Amino acid sequence: MDLTARWFPGHLAEIDRDECLELLGRSEVGRVGLGEPAGPLVLPVNHVMVGEGIVFRTVPRTAIADHVGAGRLSYQVDELGSCMSSGWSVLARGTADFVDGPWLEEHDIEPEPWTDVRRTLFVRITPTQITGRRVLPA
Amino acid sequence: MDLTARWFPGHLAEIDRDECLELLGRSEVGRVGLGEPAGPLVLPVNHVMVGEGIVFRTVPRTAIADHVGAGRLSYQVDELGSCMSSGWSVLARGTADFVDGPWLEEHDIEPEPWTDVRRTLFVRITPTQITGRRVLPA
Repeated sequence: MDLTARWFPGHLAEIDRDECLELLGRSEVGRVGLGEPAGPLVLPVNHVMVGEGIVFRTVPRTAIADHVGAGRLSYQVDELGSCMSSGWSVLARGTADFVDGPWLEEHDIEPEPWTDVRRTLFVRITPTQITGRRVLPA
Repeated sequence: MDLTARWFPGHLAEIDRDECLELLGRSEVGRVGLGEPAGPLVLPVNHVMVGEGIVFRTVPRTAIADHVGAGRLSYQVDELGSCMSSGWSVLARGTADFVDGPWLEEHDIEPEPWTDVRRTLFVRITPTQITGRRVLPA
C-alpha cells in the first residue's frame, strides 16, 4: 500500500478580511467550534450573515447553547472539493450571544416554527478575528 | 428579505463508532481542532487512517505542531452537500503524537519529499472518543 499519493502538497495564501466575509456570506453551512476539556467540540450548523454577525439556530440546554456568553468560540467554513489540492478555509473567532424575536424581525429574519421545533434559540457570533487561507495547487 | 427558507430543519441520528471509523477512512480531508485562548483553531488538512489513528502532515513550529503532546485535540470530517437538509459529521477527540520514519515505513507510508517540503512532521491523533451524527431530511 502506497499512501504517498494521498498527501496533497499545495501552497497556502492568506485571504483578506473582506473576502473572508464574502465567503462566509456565500456559505450556507459551517462548523461551530467550542473549547471542551475532551478537546474542541466541532459541529456543523447552517447560518446566515447579518452584517458581520454569524447567526444560527440551536436547541436549548445543549453544549452550544450552554457555551453562549460563557467564553470564546469559533466558526469555520471551507470548500475543499474532493481533495485538498485546492480550496479555501475561513475561521472566525469571537463571542456569542442570543438574539431574540424583535432583533430577528428588525433584520428581516422570521423566527417561524420549524419541523424541528426544538431549535428555538438563535445564536449570533460576533467575530473579533477573521482569518482565511486558500490552498493553491502545487 | 425572507431568510426563513435558509434554515434547514432536519433530524439528527447518532452514527455508531464502527461507521464513524468507516467514514473517517473514506474521507480524504478533515479539520483539526485545537483549543486556544482566542477560541478553537479549526484548520483543514488531509489525512490517512492507520488503524484507528488519524495521520496527517504539518509544518514545524506552527500551532498544530506545538499542540502535539500538549493537550487534547479534535478531528472532524463531514459531508454536507449544498445544504444541511442531509449529510453527516464525525468528530474524533483524543491526543496526538509525532510518528517517525520507521513507524511510517512499518505502515507502508512513504515519507517522500514533497513539493511543499516544509510539511516535514507526521502527526497521529489517537482518538479516545468518536461520535457522529447524520442529518436526515425533515
